[in-house]
Amino acid sequence: MSTQVTKKLNGLPLTQMMETVGAIKNDPAIAQFQFRASNKWIDGGENRSMIQDFYGAGREDDSREVPFEFTNGEPPVLLGGNEGANPVEFLLHALAGCMTTTMVIHAAARGIRLTELSTELEGDMDLQGLLGLDEGVFPGYEQIRIKMNVEADCSDKELEDLLEFVRGHSPVCTTVCKPVPVVIERVTSSN
Amino acid sequence: MSTQVTKKLNGLPLTQMMETVGAIKNDPAIAQFQFRASNKWIDGGENRSMIQDFYGAGREDDSREVPFEFTNGEPPVLLGGNEGANPVEFLLHALAGCMTTTMVIHAAARGIRLTELSTELEGDMDLQGLLGLDEGVFPGYEQIRIKMNVEADCSDKELEDLLEFVRGHSPVCTTVCKPVPVVIERVTSSN
Repeated sequence: MSTQVTKKLNGLPLTQMMETVGAIKNDPAIAQFQFRASNKWIDGGENRSMIQDFYGAGREDDSREVPFEFTNGEPPVLLGGNEGANPVEFLLHALAGCMTTTMVIHAAARGIRLTELSTELEGDMDLQGLLGLDEGVFPGYEQIRIKMNVEADCSDKELEDLLEFVRGHSPVCTTVCKPVPVVIERVTSSN
Repeated sequence: MSTQVTKKLNGLPLTQMMETVGAIKNDPAIAQFQFRASNKWIDGGENRSMIQDFYGAGREDDSREVPFEFTNGEPPVLLGGNEGANPVEFLLHALAGCMTTTMVIHAAARGIRLTELSTELEGDMDLQGLLGLDEGVFPGYEQIRIKMNVEADCSDKELEDLLEFVRGHSPVCTTVCKPVPVVIERVTSSN
């Protein structure tokens, strides 16, 4: 009879993480993932997404018995009733989470134990862009700033190196920082 | 005694919308918004954001009595316990919502009544990028595809024109499609 001990660092199972990296090195095709969301307009600035299945590690994932549901809304000053956070706020949530998880993964890979990690994000936007009132105004975020408070059992230099690596390897951060093609196709219910 | 009737199109109050546009034309400074999120790491791939205040229309918004809370998680295949959708899925939710709300606003501005609007999104990602296993692999989404099913009381040509306009004016879509600077600053609790 043996006792199984799962060695974790930053909450991540180290053996399983190393096995995953080894499996990908052996067969890079299993690193191909496809994430999905479906969304339905409710009324005005309110709409709702369902997120459940995805493809990854060579197969369709079936680990979620029920879908996650998230509601976009708008505050009164943007003609809504605060039915939910708004889409540009959800983008900040996605960015915060991705920077954090990418930090956690690569800290673990380097043997760094994190004890605290929190972020404050702010992004500037000129609504003249969205409203089409001035075609010279960019409709998206002009800039997003992240203040990160991180405590770890390593030197300041190691933490700076880690953060610099994370900046260039976070999927959401790189999607925001670099141009990513969005292809839009109009379909009808009968498709 | 007068009866106030709020004329709505696509759920948006038309008079208030036109007044907002008029006010911005008169004083473009009120179109400056700053959105915010704060996030705290829990453990492993789990972290949580709080979204409440923002600046816009010349003042701090105080319309939300309690903050919205959203949890990022990871599925088992990505070493998590499905504590929430993951950050790259939240990005799709943000994009879906922003395309939808931007459609709703500009349809209303053009006098187009929408009767149905739903989207299906999928995005491809090669995890070799996130994991730093191949520096030639982009860590973010390689491409995001949106299938939009939209029904409206206008011609097909008007709908195509609207969709083309929306693609270039959705804040999240343009943030994804174009390079947006993300500035990261490391702070300590004492800051």
